[in-house]
Amino acid sequence: STSRVSAMNGVPQRGKLLTLDNMNPKVKRVEYAVRGPIVQRAVQIEKELREGVKKPFTEVIKANIGDAHAMGQKPITFLRQVLALCSYPELLKDNQFPEDAKKRAQRILEACGGHSIGAYSASQGIECIRHDVAHFIEKRDGGIPSNPDNIYLSTGASDAIVTILKLLVSGEGRDRTGVMISIPQYPLYSAALAELDAVQISYYLDEDKCWSLDVKELRRALYAARQHCNPRVLCIINPGNPTGQVQSRQCIEDVIRFAKEENLFLMADEVYQDNVYAEGCQFHSFKKVLFEMGPEYSSKVEMASFHSTSKCYMGECGFRGGYMEVINMDPEVKAQLTKLVSVRLCPPVPGQALLDLVVNPPQPDEPSYATFMKERTAVLAALAEKAKLTEQIFNTVPGITCNPVQGAMYTFPRISLPQKAIDKAKEEGQVPDMFYCMKLLEEEGICLVPGSGFGQREGTFHFRMTILPPTEKLKLVLKKIKDFHLRFTKEFS
Amino acid sequence: STSRVSAMNGVPQRGKLLTLDNMNPKVKRVEYAVRGPIVQRAVQIEKELREGVKKPFTEVIKANIGDAHAMGQKPITFLRQVLALCSYPELLKDNQFPEDAKKRAQRILEACGGHSIGAYSASQGIECIRHDVAHFIEKRDGGIPSNPDNIYLSTGASDAIVTILKLLVSGEGRDRTGVMISIPQYPLYSAALAELDAVQISYYLDEDKCWSLDVKELRRALYAARQHCNPRVLCIINPGNPTGQVQSRQCIEDVIRFAKEENLFLMADEVYQDNVYAEGCQFHSFKKVLFEMGPEYSSKVEMASFHSTSKCYMGECGFRGGYMEVINMDPEVKAQLTKLVSVRLCPPVPGQALLDLVVNPPQPDEPSYATFMKERTAVLAALAEKAKLTEQIFNTVPGITCNPVQGAMYTFPRISLPQKAIDKAKEEGQVPDMFYCMKLLEEEGICLVPGSGFGQREGTFHFRMTILPPTEKLKLVLKKIKDFHLRFTKEFS
Repeated sequence: STSRVSAMNGVPQRGKLLTLDNMNPKVKRVEYAVRGPIVQRAVQIEKELREGVKKPFTEVIKANIGDAHAMGQKPITFLRQVLALCSYPELLKDNQFPEDAKKRAQRILEACGGHSIGAYSASQGIECIRHDVAHFIEKRDGGIPSNPDNIYLSTGASDAIVTILKLLVSGEGRDRTGVMISIPQYPLYSAALAELDAVQISYYLDEDKCWSLDVKELRRALYAARQHCNPRVLCIINPGNPTGQVQSRQCIEDVIRFAKEENLFLMADEVYQDNVYAEGCQFHSFKKVLFEMGPEYSSKVEMASFHSTSKCYMGECGFRGGYMEVINMDPEVKAQLTKLVSVRLCPPVPGQALLDLVVNPPQPDEPSYATFMKERTAVLAALAEKAKLTEQIFNTVPGITCNPVQGAMYTFPRISLPQKAIDKAKEEGQVPDMFYCMKLLEEEGICLVPGSGFGQREGTFHFRMTILPPTEKLKLVLKKIKDFHLRFTKEFS
Repeated sequence: STSRVSAMNGVPQRGKLLTLDNMNPKVKRVEYAVRGPIVQRAVQIEKELREGVKKPFTEVIKANIGDAHAMGQKPITFLRQVLALCSYPELLKDNQFPEDAKKRAQRILEACGGHSIGAYSASQGIECIRHDVAHFIEKRDGGIPSNPDNIYLSTGASDAIVTILKLLVSGEGRDRTGVMISIPQYPLYSAALAELDAVQISYYLDEDKCWSLDVKELRRALYAARQHCNPRVLCIINPGNPTGQVQSRQCIEDVIRFAKEENLFLMADEVYQDNVYAEGCQFHSFKKVLFEMGPEYSSKVEMASFHSTSKCYMGECGFRGGYMEVINMDPEVKAQLTKLVSVRLCPPVPGQALLDLVVNPPQPDEPSYATFMKERTAVLAALAEKAKLTEQIFNTVPGITCNPVQGAMYTFPRISLPQKAIDKAKEEGQVPDMFYCMKLLEEEGICLVPGSGFGQREGTFHFRMTILPPTEKLKLVLKKIKDFHLRFTKEFS
């Protein structure tokens, strides 16, 4: 089908050179539901609304992604003041900016080539920012040392996660690297594994126990996988995305012990570390628990942990800031890592600057402290309220079961779908929860991500919804979903 | 070697899990000289200087990379004003900012989720910025239409280049995708090909004809490669990096005809499109020439062209802004491309904002126009002067031959090395031009990149130096290199 004779000039001509048939098959296997077909349809509907097409709603609410500012959350003043000062240093002469903002900006600029955030930085990130990150980690982890040489700044956490996976992937056939990821998972992981041609090893979180992780399930998944690949990596997302659970200290210890026993490289995705709402829950970093388990562990277990400027109280997704800390990495491998990141030159410098402010926020004796704390506290308090609200309202709907949103920014409720709806979906060639979400989008203008995009136990159905909309809008969203769910259930019963 | 019995507790323990032996072999093969060992040594020397170690120089001059701001070039006022306004919209109330800067900032903010550059954008880039890019291309190319749907914003040009290569790579053994790249080349290409396990097909630029490209050489390289792989892609860098040549219109036509005849996907790296200095030279975009060749070409040849905010007159490397335009891409493949870029969510939004200003600069009737033009012209005029100066001074040195720097930001002079130096280098396990550059760094504090990092004809030696240092410093650098070269030649004769 790629070669045909043109009627025009009699010489052989080709169709497209690059086609679905001959393109990279690994790329074809990539799936990323968070921005998949449902979001494309949502964008289309928005366009239709603008063009005057009548719909049963007046706006599309995109609850498919953890995008705080898009949901109306205001940027933290201090962060943006410093960024403005870094962008246009003439403003340093301006009296309207507080002294601590100016000091931070000057310090960042002094660390930049030519005192400009327009210069490339070191590929690993600006040195003084890596020091600030290490200091932040030390403080967070009660004094456990962090070495700035082990910090790599990145383009969001996604970039760092894929980079570490790249290092770890090797082998063919039965020797292919296997990577353990939770189900449900954040689909960056499955997408990266498809692209890198690594084997995905799925371990299931326990929905009945608030999406907690059981080491027995890890062991089951691992031992089964050893039959057909070489499992080398264990990925953990804590607090959980899309499931919102917060791991107990005990659970983290068990995971670390398991990783050590089974010789697994640990990847700890901790981008929601400030997003913990439920009473009795607390964020424990894998690094801290690892070191508290004693030198037998802290000197042995190889690990990378990831953080980002996109979540927590700041929600600065657009800046694509982030870092990782690598622990116990072989120095020769670390040299390879440094080489690998140098090919892309450097992470965006405005994102690095932003990260610096996140790890080194205003201190009590500084002029911006009060406002900063007020803004930060307000965001986190509102999120805590919305987490509770979401759980409560969903659990009043027959056919929706919702675990507590202990942390992160999402709820992943389970939905019962009538058999007729399941059959109808299959008839239309759709997975049932995609059918459900698509219908919700068309009828109510609410964009969610079907559970199938994250993985779920066979025969169960879910969706992921972010809790980020402002409280009043969130209430509206929850009501609309409730009404829709009842209508949907009735329609297909 | 990865398993041993611990004396401590009698159970088998391992060395490192992740080692040079078992890591991803493709990553190990990656090389990127622009930030390689010589730059690491330069950073080390800078540290030693700060610690008071005595050297024959007081500062390291890093002429290894095209990093304009690091070399003292000042940011363009208008760009930074708008970025500050986007970062901290409170400043929109401020009288010190010109109205056109405010208008631009408002327009960008209105196109952002929640009117914040902290929101994720569409993965392909903010829609109104893609429209501005398309409009910019149309204007640049004399009215040839550009479709915003074919524009993908990116994290610098590197990101887009690797993304397109990812789509194109497939096959195994003799079916592996072959990618034609110039020698000398910018090592992003060879690095990406190593990582993607594609076959590098080297075609040589003609140093004797000012690094021009001859289609005969393309054909030679292609036909030889067909014996052992499946050549599908032809990469061109124009203006050239590291070689600084500017392709003639005729040459571009020949290349396009060749690509069509031989069924090659064209990748046109045009990030230096504003950096043309030599009299009689002019930038011709591949897109424009393609369309001027008539529908037989313009409807057939599949192509991607790349641009960036890092070079030209603005030199804003740290923002990692860029775009690509894809032409004649199969719609199904384009859908795969859109899916692939969505996994990384979006390019950094401040970089997108910056790109918008670059493609939509102040117009003659706007208040910022005069200053903008003055600054832009000054940068480009200084570069033109430095391009000439560099060529002239190098050509006064016996043993250094330097082609005119027609465009881009680099010179790639040829250096004669005495046999004794070559022998000495081999003795020390170094390639000869690395030995030369290392010695230059240690003795004069000047950091260049050895020609071997870009590729060169066997038996020839070169280095790449950026022409970006301020004129007086550039003169000093040239003098130091001259003195060093004479001393080096004498020492090893």
